[in-house]
Amino acid sequence: MYSERIRLVSLHDRIMSAEQAAALIEDGMTVGMSGFGGAGDAKAIPAALVERAGRDPLKINLITGASLGKGLDGLMAEAGLLARRMPFQGDPVLRRAINAGEVAFIDQHLSEVVEQMRDGHIPTPDVAVVEAVAITERGHIVPTSSVGNSASLALAAKRVIVELNLGCNPLLEGLHDIHVPADRPDRQPIPLVRVDDRIGTPAIEIDPAKIAAIVICDTPETAYPMLPPDDETQAIANHLIGFFEREVARGRLAGNLAPLQVGVGSIANAVMHGLIESSFSDLTLYSEVLQDSAFALFDAGRLRFASGCSITLSEDCGRRVFAELGKYRERLVLRPQEISNHPEVARRLGIIGINTALEFDIYGNVNSTHVGGTRMMNGIGGSGDFTRNARLAIFVTKSIAKDGAISSVVPMVSHVDHTEHDVDILVTEQGLADLRGLAPRERARAIIDNCVHPDYHAALEDYFERASRRGGQTPHLLGEALSWHLNLEERGHMLKAI
Amino acid sequence: MYSERIRLVSLHDRIMSAEQAAALIEDGMTVGMSGFGGAGDAKAIPAALVERAGRDPLKINLITGASLGKGLDGLMAEAGLLARRMPFQGDPVLRRAINAGEVAFIDQHLSEVVEQMRDGHIPTPDVAVVEAVAITERGHIVPTSSVGNSASLALAAKRVIVELNLGCNPLLEGLHDIHVPADRPDRQPIPLVRVDDRIGTPAIEIDPAKIAAIVICDTPETAYPMLPPDDETQAIANHLIGFFEREVARGRLAGNLAPLQVGVGSIANAVMHGLIESSFSDLTLYSEVLQDSAFALFDAGRLRFASGCSITLSEDCGRRVFAELGKYRERLVLRPQEISNHPEVARRLGIIGINTALEFDIYGNVNSTHVGGTRMMNGIGGSGDFTRNARLAIFVTKSIAKDGAISSVVPMVSHVDHTEHDVDILVTEQGLADLRGLAPRERARAIIDNCVHPDYHAALEDYFERASRRGGQTPHLLGEALSWHLNLEERGHMLKAI
Repeated sequence: MYSERIRLVSLHDRIMSAEQAAALIEDGMTVGMSGFGGAGDAKAIPAALVERAGRDPLKINLITGASLGKGLDGLMAEAGLLARRMPFQGDPVLRRAINAGEVAFIDQHLSEVVEQMRDGHIPTPDVAVVEAVAITERGHIVPTSSVGNSASLALAAKRVIVELNLGCNPLLEGLHDIHVPADRPDRQPIPLVRVDDRIGTPAIEIDPAKIAAIVICDTPETAYPMLPPDDETQAIANHLIGFFEREVARGRLAGNLAPLQVGVGSIANAVMHGLIESSFSDLTLYSEVLQDSAFALFDAGRLRFASGCSITLSEDCGRRVFAELGKYRERLVLRPQEISNHPEVARRLGIIGINTALEFDIYGNVNSTHVGGTRMMNGIGGSGDFTRNARLAIFVTKSIAKDGAISSVVPMVSHVDHTEHDVDILVTEQGLADLRGLAPRERARAIIDNCVHPDYHAALEDYFERASRRGGQTPHLLGEALSWHLNLEERGHMLKAI
Repeated sequence: MYSERIRLVSLHDRIMSAEQAAALIEDGMTVGMSGFGGAGDAKAIPAALVERAGRDPLKINLITGASLGKGLDGLMAEAGLLARRMPFQGDPVLRRAINAGEVAFIDQHLSEVVEQMRDGHIPTPDVAVVEAVAITERGHIVPTSSVGNSASLALAAKRVIVELNLGCNPLLEGLHDIHVPADRPDRQPIPLVRVDDRIGTPAIEIDPAKIAAIVICDTPETAYPMLPPDDETQAIANHLIGFFEREVARGRLAGNLAPLQVGVGSIANAVMHGLIESSFSDLTLYSEVLQDSAFALFDAGRLRFASGCSITLSEDCGRRVFAELGKYRERLVLRPQEISNHPEVARRLGIIGINTALEFDIYGNVNSTHVGGTRMMNGIGGSGDFTRNARLAIFVTKSIAKDGAISSVVPMVSHVDHTEHDVDILVTEQGLADLRGLAPRERARAIIDNCVHPDYHAALEDYFERASRRGGQTPHLLGEALSWHLNLEERGHMLKAI
């Protein structure tokens, strides 16, 4: 029964089917939906919209926190439902539609989405759809496993649809810390000065009169596929832990390091797993997505507190953690992505940001989004928010991909998401390049000497040597700078000779 | 006489010649110097070091606020004095040495320099040299026409040399607001919530025991050469003012706009001059360098308050303003560049940032530093600090350069300083492209339709059209993307046919 989950009784008459609720969404509308990293997404309404699009012409502009789980983005793309999509996605079907130019994808720094809405750069949603674990006595919405942009989307929307997910552990209530900065010019500092500070409310404080529909569901959490650590990711973790140990020994980092931010994905997750066997304790996370590794570090007694904006776990880990939530609850907080990723807070706390690169170049510019400089993979996500403001901005990647046809270290990246100004440390399984305080030519030396796969070493060395002879602060041979990518496109391998 | 300028009497015996003071600086040392945008720089010590380098081998690592005036950077480079230079420069002689690889130039976001010092990424200065208008009763240093990094450099250095400039108007005292964030993990929010807030002290509060030398000078302020507005800069200003008027009419900006930040240089200065004839009043500046245009806007009754980290004026304007400082004093504040450029404050205040691009591409990526992708012009300066966090990030440039041999709008920039994620509005004399909320292909359409010079329109249209046919989120032809730059390098013109 749901009476203890919808505690404002007057809202009980808003309960309806997903089809009825979806009817509130009209062709051409801008719709805001909960969901971040496949956690806490609305599930019934997207499905109902897909169903409806099969009958009637229906196109919407969709704004979420970040990626949706359960293939929802793909189903919506396939149904032709998405005119515009922002700020992030990670679905193979939607990816194809984006790269074909069928869906306009606006790839945004995740902390800036609601700020852009406030400023009128992007439209305010007509309808917001938010997954909830409960609705309070005052009609406020308690989100499930992510906050993302849910609070600001619901506050800004004309009408709100709540998807009440009975499958979620009621202990999720109390985990959230909803703080929304005031409009300018009356904005005050964000009062968060410690990772475990709570500065907001446990629910989204909307006017309950805006709740136009409540849809009851009982859907299990989405599981996030996670590759296990392998030799290369273990080597990356070892290089990084060795670096941290040296920094502690030199007095540049404390024994508990600094608040850690860790990007989404198997490599970053594996790197974090490496910390389990390390000498560091009393660690804290001030991150975006809390993955399996966060809970493994809790269990190992290494992690003191974790702040994020979503909990995104693999199937096994999720089953266990969501069932035993009481065990972790006091050491967890879920925030809006505007706060978890806010430049103000990231800079104040001095986080160590660890994110995954698609490729980087000899000067330390990082591409994290565009394959071959043109085709979108997922999106920039929160990496820019953290990297620009981190105390230490670290990027990790394996040195080669596709059986060696691709080198992750190239003469010039084919697309820049993070400029060399923002990147401090690069790590592959080959080694670690410490770029701090170095001029570009020195950065190139450190990267070529430490990060490149042996198969590509001579070619990169040759490029840099010939470019340097031509001079410049950042020596390049413009006619060859992108030739590795062109080789790959034309011959299937980055090296011409092969 | 200087007794009222050195009010801590016990310091009088530290007065010595520039040569004697310069002897405190040894070969291999890291030296921090005042100076930002050619304002408030140490003058006697650099000259004495140049003189000494003529006799003895001497190399230093030089950290300043930003660029130095009076050709000092060039003289030091020519004398072989500079091993490493950060974070910015603007001197033709030093530029040549940097591009020849003779000086290691570390081009940094200006807000981050002292943060990187605190974190141990770059060395702490052995000696700091700071130009002052006075030393207080407590031995604290009152800077002259810039704050830059002077406070943090003096606080961090083992010894401090003060250049007391008797030529500076004593009314400069009281203009400065020195606030230095505490070390982490005890850092608190920066309490600045209004442009005219004062959050610090009027002098740099160092331990006077660290003042190892005082050098008395009487050097006039450096004049900054400023080109007068021309037809193109007037057209840029008109496009921008029209845009602001439409934003006010649509309710997206208030009648006094938002705090403005304006980059250094003739184009940005000319754009600001355009506001004199506009309908906007009660304007505020939260900027870096305050240029001639700030004082013209004061005089025209348009500007209410200006916050910056240096005052850098042309000869005529400087003579007048520094003589009549009392007239402006209550409406001016000079801050450390860490605060004037701080992401926390820029984002909180919601500034409109107007900076100059060297070139931009059809997707809105901006190059502001590297000619032909390789040769450093000046440095990124504060543009990244502001652009990333601005409410509206605007870049301006003329659409062509070198009699049309160069288009400022290219298929792909040869170097990225600001990614498309950060750039909202692009303006040339041709028109204005409003990129907010657009996907890359839409951004290209807006840029090609509005900003390109007619001579390059067909070629850019053709590139985009052929690239789009190949697909992708950000369509490019990798084999041609940098061909315009290559044409310029090889044939002296960006278009092949010419």
